[in-house]
Parts: sequence; C-alpha cells; structure tokens
Amino acid sequence: MHVAVLDEPGSLRVEERERPEPAPDELLVNVREIGICGSDVHYYEHGKIGDYVVESPLILGHESAGEVVAVGERTGFEPGDRVALEPGVPCRRCAHCKRGEYNLCPDVTFMATPPDDGAFAEYVAWPADFAYRLPDSVSLREGALCEPLSVGIHAARRGNVDVGDSVLITGCGPIGLLAMEAVRAAGATEVFISDMVPEKLRTAESRGADAVIDVREENLAGAVANLTDGDGVDIVIEASGAKPAIRSTIDSVRRGGTIVLIGLAQNAEIPLDTGEIIDNELDLFGSFRYRNTYPAAIDLLADNVVDVEGIVDFESGLDDIDKAFERAMNEETVKGMITI
Amino acid sequence: MHVAVLDEPGSLRVEERERPEPAPDELLVNVREIGICGSDVHYYEHGKIGDYVVESPLILGHESAGEVVAVGERTGFEPGDRVALEPGVPCRRCAHCKRGEYNLCPDVTFMATPPDDGAFAEYVAWPADFAYRLPDSVSLREGALCEPLSVGIHAARRGNVDVGDSVLITGCGPIGLLAMEAVRAAGATEVFISDMVPEKLRTAESRGADAVIDVREENLAGAVANLTDGDGVDIVIEASGAKPAIRSTIDSVRRGGTIVLIGLAQNAEIPLDTGEIIDNELDLFGSFRYRNTYPAAIDLLADNVVDVEGIVDFESGLDDIDKAFERAMNEETVKGMITI
Amino acid sequence: MHVAVLDEPGSLRVEERERPEPAPDELLVNVREIGICGSDVHYYEHGKIGDYVVESPLILGHESAGEVVAVGERTGFEPGDRVALEPGVPCRRCAHCKRGEYNLCPDVTFMATPPDDGAFAEYVAWPADFAYRLPDSVSLREGALCEPLSVGIHAARRGNVDVGDSVLITGCGPIGLLAMEAVRAAGATEVFISDMVPEKLRTAESRGADAVIDVREENLAGAVANLTDGDGVDIVIEASGAKPAIRSTIDSVRRGGTIVLIGLAQNAEIPLDTGEIIDNELDLFGSFRYRNTYPAAIDLLADNVVDVEGIVDFESGLDDIDKAFERAMNEETVKGMITI
Amino acid sequence: MHVAVLDEPGSLRVEERERPEPAPDELLVNVREIGICGSDVHYYEHGKIGDYVVESPLILGHESAGEVVAVGERTGFEPGDRVALEPGVPCRRCAHCKRGEYNLCPDVTFMATPPDDGAFAEYVAWPADFAYRLPDSVSLREGALCEPLSVGIHAARRGNVDVGDSVLITGCGPIGLLAMEAVRAAGATEVFISDMVPEKLRTAESRGADAVIDVREENLAGAVANLTDGDGVDIVIEASGAKPAIRSTIDSVRRGGTIVLIGLAQNAEIPLDTGEIIDNELDLFGSFRYRNTYPAAIDLLADNVVDVEGIVDFESGLDDIDKAFERAMNEETVKGMITI
Repeated sequence: MHVAVLDEPGSLRVEERERPEPAPDELLVNVREIGICGSDVHYYEHGKIGDYVVESPLILGHESAGEVVAVGERTGFEPGDRVALEPGVPCRRCAHCKRGEYNLCPDVTFMATPPDDGAFAEYVAWPADFAYRLPDSVSLREGALCEPLSVGIHAARRGNVDVGDSVLITGCGPIGLLAMEAVRAAGATEVFISDMVPEKLRTAESRGADAVIDVREENLAGAVANLTDGDGVDIVIEASGAKPAIRSTIDSVRRGGTIVLIGLAQNAEIPLDTGEIIDNELDLFGSFRYRNTYPAAIDLLADNVVDVEGIVDFESGLDDIDKAFERAMNEETVKGMITI
Repeated sequence: MHVAVLDEPGSLRVEERERPEPAPDELLVNVREIGICGSDVHYYEHGKIGDYVVESPLILGHESAGEVVAVGERTGFEPGDRVALEPGVPCRRCAHCKRGEYNLCPDVTFMATPPDDGAFAEYVAWPADFAYRLPDSVSLREGALCEPLSVGIHAARRGNVDVGDSVLITGCGPIGLLAMEAVRAAGATEVFISDMVPEKLRTAESRGADAVIDVREENLAGAVANLTDGDGVDIVIEASGAKPAIRSTIDSVRRGGTIVLIGLAQNAEIPLDTGEIIDNELDLFGSFRYRNTYPAAIDLLADNVVDVEGIVDFESGLDDIDKAFERAMNEETVKGMITI
Repeated sequence: MHVAVLDEPGSLRVEERERPEPAPDELLVNVREIGICGSDVHYYEHGKIGDYVVESPLILGHESAGEVVAVGERTGFEPGDRVALEPGVPCRRCAHCKRGEYNLCPDVTFMATPPDDGAFAEYVAWPADFAYRLPDSVSLREGALCEPLSVGIHAARRGNVDVGDSVLITGCGPIGLLAMEAVRAAGATEVFISDMVPEKLRTAESRGADAVIDVREENLAGAVANLTDGDGVDIVIEASGAKPAIRSTIDSVRRGGTIVLIGLAQNAEIPLDTGEIIDNELDLFGSFRYRNTYPAAIDLLADNVVDVEGIVDFESGLDDIDKAFERAMNEETVKGMITI
Repeated sequence: MHVAVLDEPGSLRVEERERPEPAPDELLVNVREIGICGSDVHYYEHGKIGDYVVESPLILGHESAGEVVAVGERTGFEPGDRVALEPGVPCRRCAHCKRGEYNLCPDVTFMATPPDDGAFAEYVAWPADFAYRLPDSVSLREGALCEPLSVGIHAARRGNVDVGDSVLITGCGPIGLLAMEAVRAAGATEVFISDMVPEKLRTAESRGADAVIDVREENLAGAVANLTDGDGVDIVIEASGAKPAIRSTIDSVRRGGTIVLIGLAQNAEIPLDTGEIIDNELDLFGSFRYRNTYPAAIDLLADNVVDVEGIVDFESGLDDIDKAFERAMNEETVKGMITI
C-alpha cells in the first residue's frame, strides 16, 4: 500500500509498505479522507514538537475516516462499514483510564506522534472500540473532521457552556472555528471571535460569529467590554496560542467566569494576572485533546447541527501531499484534506 | 384598572381595582400579554391546588410581560422599557436564597398562588430585579412565555443535557413542548416525545420531534427501546404527570442515565422500581419551577434558537377570559394567551 | 488448593481444585482474608439473586485480600506484596468503561456472581490493575474489607457529602456502618442511623452515631424531624432495602436534599411520593457497587480515618465455612470473616 | 462605646463613638472577640490595599463574634444569643447573588473595607441573616475564627477535595493552617505544607501535616515529587501569595489535578506555564473569600473536627490594639486576637 512518510524536516515522500493485518480486536480500514493538522505541519517543518522527535521515518496524519475492509473476531463491525477513527488509544488500565479521563493516559498510542505511525496511508489497522460507525448522512470527510470537532466539543464541555452563554473564542484556525460550532451546539447565544488574519475573520463572520475582533486593530479586552456592557463574556476559549491573547483572557471574562486554554504557546511561560483570577474567582481549565466525544460529534453531524466541511479550503491526493503541506503553511488557509 | 378575579371555582369575573403604586425598588408595569397556565385552570376548576386554597378573591395569571409605566428610585429601568416578569420573588435571606436555589425559598411570593395576586390585570407593581428587559427582537408574547420556557430550561439544566444526547419527553403540553425547545438548544440531537392526544403529537412532530409515541397505541418503554437499539435514552424529562409515564421513565432510560420529574401526578405515590434505579445507577431529579433562567430564555429568543409563540393556539381579551378558560380546559388545546 | 464450593442452596463444601496460573497481566494471590457478604449468604440460602442463578458449582466470596505468590510479566508487582482485590473487572472497551463508570459495564466479570468464581479459595489469579498494594499499616483483613467500605465511599460520593452535612443512614448492617465511616471521612458532622435490631443500633452508637433510631419504636421521618428542627437531613443513604425505610427517605430529607439508594428491596416496586420529589426538588441517586474507590479506601485505612475491623463479629477457617454461613444468617451478626 | 480607628498608616487610636441602633432586620451585637487579619495589618501599614484607600477614619476588623444585646423586629434572635458575624453583606439582588455566588456581588458591604467600618468596636449592628448562632460548645473566639476558617472551607470546596486525596498547601499563615483543617475535614489523607519560616513549619507539623517543606532549603516541586512517587499531589492550595510558590503549583500537581489560588501576590502578573496547564489538563481556580460556609464552619467546630484556637499565639485588649498590631507585623506570629 501507499503511505506518506516524513523522513526529515521538509521531506514528505510516498512509499510502498506492507498492508497491516488486523488483530482480533481490530479493523482494517481503507482510509479515504485525512485532514492536515497544524501538528502534522509542525512535524513537517521542524521534525519535532517539544519532546516528541521524529527519529525514524514516520507516517503523519491523525484525522481520518474510511471504509472497513477486514475485521478481527468479535469486533461488532463488518466489511463495508464506514468509520471515523479516534487516533489515541489509551492503555485502559491506569488510574486515568479507570476514571474515564483516558486522554490523560501516559501510555496512549497516538497516531502520528513519534514513534506511532498515523493515517496518511491507504490502510490502517485500528482497535474496533476506537472506530465509530458513520450513518449514511455523514460523509467520510465529516468523519475525518470529527477529530478537530472533538477538540472543540471537549473544550465546550470543559467550559461548561450553558444555554444563553456568551463566549469569546480567540483564534480562527480550525480549532477556533470548530469550537464555535461546539459552543453554538451547546446553546451559546453570543459568540465573538478574534484573530489577526482578515481572511480568517471573514470566514468566521460568514459562519455566524456575532462579532469578529481584529486584534491588530482593536484591543481584545476592550472590544469584548464594548460588546458586553463592560461585563465580559461568560466563557473564553483560547485557541490561538498567542501570548497576548492568552494574557487577555483574564480581562475578557466576566466575574465568576470560565477560561479554557487549548492553544499551545511558543513559549509556555505566560505572565497571568493571578490577582484577577482570585478577586474575580475565575475558573481556568486546560483542555487536552478530548475524550468520549466521537459519538456526540457524529450525532451532531448527522443532525446537521454543526458544519465541519465548510472549513476545508483545499484538498489533494496522497501523491501530492508535499504540495498540500506547503499550502497548509500559508497562514491564510484554514484546513486542507488528503483524499485517497 | 381592570383585573380578572377568581371568586370561587368556575367563576372568573372582571372587576375594577385601584392601580398599585411601585415601591422604591419596584416597577409599575402595564401588562399586555399573559399566558393561561394549567395551574390557573386548575384553580378555576377546583379552587385549590394541594394545600393552596383560594379563600378570598384571587387574581390569577403568572406568565406575563408588559411595558414599564412608572419606576421607583434606583431601579435601573425607565418608562417605556418592555419587560418580562418572573413571577416568584423569594425572601433573599434564607439558606436556599443564599445558595442560589431561590426557587426553594419557603417564603417566596408567587403570582397567582393564594394569597398572592397574579397578572391578569392591567397593571402590576413588581420588584425590578425580577423584571427583565426585552430587546426589540423579542415580542411581549415571547416575554410572557419566558415563564413556561423557564420550566423547560430548568429541567434541561437539572438533567445535565449535553451535546449529542438523546432525550425522551413524556407529555406534549406547553411544558413538554418547551422542554423540547430547551433540550434542543442545549444540544440534544434525538428528541422523542409521547402523549395520548393525537393532535398534540402532531404538533410535536411538526415542531421537530424525531419520533412521537402515542401511548394509547404503543408501550412507551418498548417504543423507546426500538428507537435506541434497546439502550434507552440518555435523559427522560417527565412532563405529563401521568402515573404510567412516571413509572415508565425507569425502563426508558439507559444505564447510568438521568430522569427529571416535572409533572405532578394526581396521586403522588407512584410505585417505582428502586431495584432498577440502583442496578442501573440512575439519577432522578425533581425539578421545581426554575431559577436564574430568564436571561438565558431571553437570549435564546433573541437569537431565534427557540420558538415559543408557535405553541399558542388561541387568544382572547381580558373581558373574555372566562371563555378562554373554558377553551383551555379542552385537552386538545395547548396554550392560550390573554392580550390586553 | 482448597476452595469452598456452593453446589445447591444450603450446601457449601470444601473441595480440591487445581491452582490457577496467572496470565501475563495477572497476579497469583494466596488469599488470606475473605469477608462473608449478604449476597454470599443469599446465594447460599436461595441459590440465586434475581436473574443470577447458580447452575454449576460456584466458589463464593468477593471481599478478599492476600499475598502475591507469582506474577505475570510486567504487572508492576512482586511476590510478597500484600494486596486487596477489587472483585469486578470490566471489559475496558464499552462506552461505560470509557466514561470511567466501569461499575456499569454490562460485561463485567464479578467474583462470586454466576458463572464467575469468587475468592473462598487458597489461590486466585487476578488482573494486576484490579489488585491494590497494601501498606504495612493496613492489615489483610482491612484489605478485604475495602470492598464493603468501597460501597460506602461510592454512596458518599454519589451523595456529594460536604463538610458540615447532616446524614441519615437507614440500616446498620455492614454497608450502613461503613457508609457511616465514609460520610464521616467526607466531613459529615451529624450522622443519624436507623435499624430495627437493638444490638445493631448499639453497635452503631458505640461507633459514634450522633443518634440512633429504632424504627420499631419510632416513626423514622418524625424522629429525623425532631433531630433537625423539622428541616430534615441534607442527605439520606438508604442501606436497608426495607420498603418502609425507602418510602421514608423522601420525608426525612430537607428541601433540596439528596437521597442515595443502595439497599435492594425484596420487592423492587416501592411507592414513592413523586410530588414531594418535585416540590422539594430532591436529587435521588442509585448507587451500584463502586468505581475508583480502592486507592481512597486504602489511604483512609492507612491514615486511621476509618475503622473497618470493628464491624467484624466472628471469624472462621475455610474448613468451617458452612458453620460461619449459618451464623451469618443470624440477623444480630454484622460481619463474618473467613481466614485462611 | 469604644472603637479602634485607623486615621492614617501606623496610627490606630481608640475613640468614643455613638452606639448604633439595629434596623428592623438587624441585631445589635456586643463584640467580644475579633481576630487581627493580614489585611487589617496591611491597612495599618500602608493605608490601602490595591484600589481600597483609607480616606477617612476607619474601624478595622472583620473576624468577630459576640453576644446579642438588642434585636430588630422578626430577626429570629434574642438578647443573650451568642453569634459569629459574617462580615460581607451582599446586595441580594444582582445576578451573582441570585446564583448564590454572593461573594462576587459587586455591591457588597464588607467590614473594614473602605468606606465600611469593621468590628474593632464594642458594639456592631448587623443584618440578622449574616449572624450565626453559636452552640454552647463553640466559644466566641472560635466564632470569630469562623471567618478565616471559612476561607479554608471555601478553598477546599473550590478544589473539590475528596476522601483519600493528597493536598499541598503553600504557606503556613492562618489561611494555610486553616485550609489544612478544612481539607482534613473533607477527607484529605495526605497534607503537605510549605513555608520559609521554620517556626511556622513547626506549628504546621505539630498540627498534623504529613510533611513540611522549607522552601529556603528545598525545591518545592522536587520535594513534592519525592513525597508522591513523582506523581504530584491531587490538589494544591496556594495560600502564600509568594511568586515562586504560585509558579511551582503547576509542577507540584498531578496530571488532571487541581490548583486553588487564594494568596494575593505583591505583583499579580506571574509567569505560568500554560503549556503544562493544557498538556496535563489542569483545573486552576481562583478562590475569593467564601460563601455559605458559616453553618458548616460552626458544625465542624461543634463536632471538634477542626481546631482553630490553636493557631492563636497572642491576644490583647482593645486599648492595646496598637501594640497587638505591631506584634502582628512580626513574621513569626500567626494569629492575634483582640478580646473586649
């Protein structure tokens, strides 16, 4: 089978590998749609993310969906089933797994995180309980995009979004835009979003943001104050990773409000006003990947409550994956897909 | 001013009363729209609800909205403001009030609950902090219907409805229909609803129920099992008060699921399978009126996320209120409004 | 090895079986202390509990601790380690397991529940992640009693016991008494307990109950009203399974309070006042076994915060297990142990 | 009556004032015990805290208890009742108050916060619903110390302390020591505490800390790692306000753990590793004063579950209040009391 392999920074190469065999609890999936994530691009550019270093050729890609072509015994699936793959499989045995917070399992196998291969491949063998059957009304592309949507759903859950809430989302990348879908689905009635790229702000506006804030032109907290009679929003979801945005979360949220951090900053040490956190009794939650989100993501897609395909602005075949990655490095693009 | 007074069961009479003066923290509101609630009809028919007995002439009505015509000092409102009135004003001092569960305050003043007068009146003086300004995009009728919508929102909150959840609502009266709006707003993707009146089931269907269950023709739990691959729904909201429906909640919910009870049964002692509650580790919550719902209700209405006007099937002026109450006693009607 | 086998109701017999081999992720444990649970006694008397029928010889016992004598590969344990065994091992793959509510896993293997053998045996092979190392300060007997203590801890968690809360526990059996330990550990400052056996009430009193209620002599709800200035307690934990007690929970709890049901009634259909559940906005939670409790149980024991050994009133060797079971059927006894 | 008045930094003076009259919903309390809080000392030294500036003579003191000598109508109290006074009385009308988070009310009247007078006075008139009757077993001194104990209880609640949890508390001042009492009461089984003053560490040790960490000699996060097999504690309560401690909270807590901030830093902008907050999915909560804690505090004291008097290391009469304040400025002292 064909797979796309990262050898070293900047070098993505399609090569031939042997098709895997599914273990008894696994499915063999013919992968059809794979999203290009910012982390894939980061590995492509730098060969590493933090402590995770690509030391031997690695298959990237972790936002995937496809068709089941073979099954192990007792998986509950059949060839022909269309499935989305949840890319992280935890150990199932540690205290985190037992508590249901399996996204914090230290022994997770996560697609496209060295040394674990990902999904830019014609076939992947994957545990059946981390594959989710797609109803006819959900496309394979939507199935692949359950992954970034899951990040948004998890952030909305971490933030305890309630009906009628106002939410500021900082950052109009795929995560910010899909967090917007998730908080809308959870009942947020006012959603403001910020970025510094006009194209992305226009996208956010066309997707229904109640207000967009261009942080090159406006002070973020000041703009939010104007939009909320000086109160601040109920919830901020920080999806940019930009230092000024992270700092501004504290001034943009109402007293007693909630901040959810998703965006990893270049330099993680960010000065935060802990006095305000205390005096205004804020809740500040880190949000790491997701857990128990795929069934909800698929239900939301089947119910047409959220739109994920609309964030895709380019696509490519597996053979042109290097060009797609070059395009993904352009800050005006939002989301590229590889279609096999 | 004109008011409609209940003297004794079956006798609703319009009479003249003196217009009240607003206290320093009160508004004087010219009431324009008032919903007829099942409890109003119950007082009309029986002269009492449980321990609450109409002993002297009582003004009914507690779903109201109108225009501010005079204000006390420092209320933050101005004449001309359009407001919805939250009908229960708690003591603000007891342990329940301090914990924010003011709907449980034993010393609440609640409109149209003996001996407190209600809102079938041209003018009502009401504490400013239990009046909520309506934006232009929300009609006075919608403002009045914030009250039953609040019952639905509170039930959805009590049930911890999450995105992607499946919900069974038992009962297609105003509360059931507006609970459906509330759970949709909170992200429920599958909503089933039951009743025994075909007209009401048709209304529910036209308002977007994913399935309707006529309990005269189908076994409720069996129908839910068919709709959910035998699992049961995530959440049941019991809004009928019917004994068979209350009993069936336990067989209709999934293991680990949640039941919210709103509907008061004629005979409150209902045999429940506590063994199933334990073995399936269910959460069963009573839901009493509402608290802290009006701002969210108004935001949802302003955002067009919910529809409340569509449940109104008849209306009348204050002078014809007796005929409106007769019509409200017909089980095929859903919601009547008095317009002044 | 010797094991005690139930062939048919009333017939417990010690026989020889082959010592099991630990799988790669398992420990072989030399069992030393096993508690006799009410469910063991029920199987002994009736040969079944609900749908669970003893159809072939079954080893009873699920409250156990012992010493590791052999280990599979990579278990993280060593021979000589002293461990408590959590008796239910879930599938690790279903939605319940992924959400961390593994006690609701429909495919659990649970000791001494047909057809799964239990721990009245010299040796048990058991998954390492459901074995918990005991510090020196915790005895093997305490380790075995982590099981019923876990039931109490889980009930206290389900009831959201907070510092300063008042709690009524109905039933002075092992579960009631250990629920008392758990709610005390969680900060309850007033604990009342009821039963109909004077010996058990005396035990509860000597273990620190603030008041004991003999339900043959006093009306339960009335006694609680007297103890709480008419308010009712914050939380009721129903651990008797007695129909009158279950009904009384609703009248014994304060407005806005919480009821936790653990005790399975003979006849599960119990008339409950749903009107009170609604008007007083109660939370009623089923509590089934436990999850994620063993580490906390061991920490509480190591810290001397709870006492479990004090509830043991008789013990026996494996060879005399039939006599021990006869004694356990006496309603005045609380907890018997088998020591190997 | 005599009162102690702060005119300007460093000048505390006892003067004569007119005894207040209780309003209809108020009590007149003969104050007997008042704690000296760090904030009182800060006003004494600097004449201001942040934006709160002492512009006219101010009576300090907000940790108080005394005896009721006169009552307004319908307060539910009688002369002779012994009461603790909760020093912050909110507006009862804003959204925060209605949600039960009255500690966030922007219009609170808070004792000894300019321009509101405090309790270093022979008599105080105070709303009856913010006075709490003390049982005979609770001393007036304990009643006064319900205030700092409340800060600890609120922090423990914010941190969701559960039975068996491990907790690090940074700072051995009154708040740190009483937070230790609160987390113990809530079931924490391992409590570590840090400071840089050996006398305070010895106090903490003698009050039952499982380990004390002298941050002048040990690296805080390193010491915690040693104590927890490298995992970190379940919960950190930051009660020092020291910048290095605040930064270290993130490295001292386990993955998925919780940080509660109480201690206000000199310079509120503290660099925090937001990458770790995200990757380890931490919960970080500000904790501001307290709400709904007094009844629990009194119950814990009546039940002898917590010790507050033991933190008092000096006392004085009202006439010597200036000397008491000088002594309170010594960093080796923990808590001084004024007794009238």
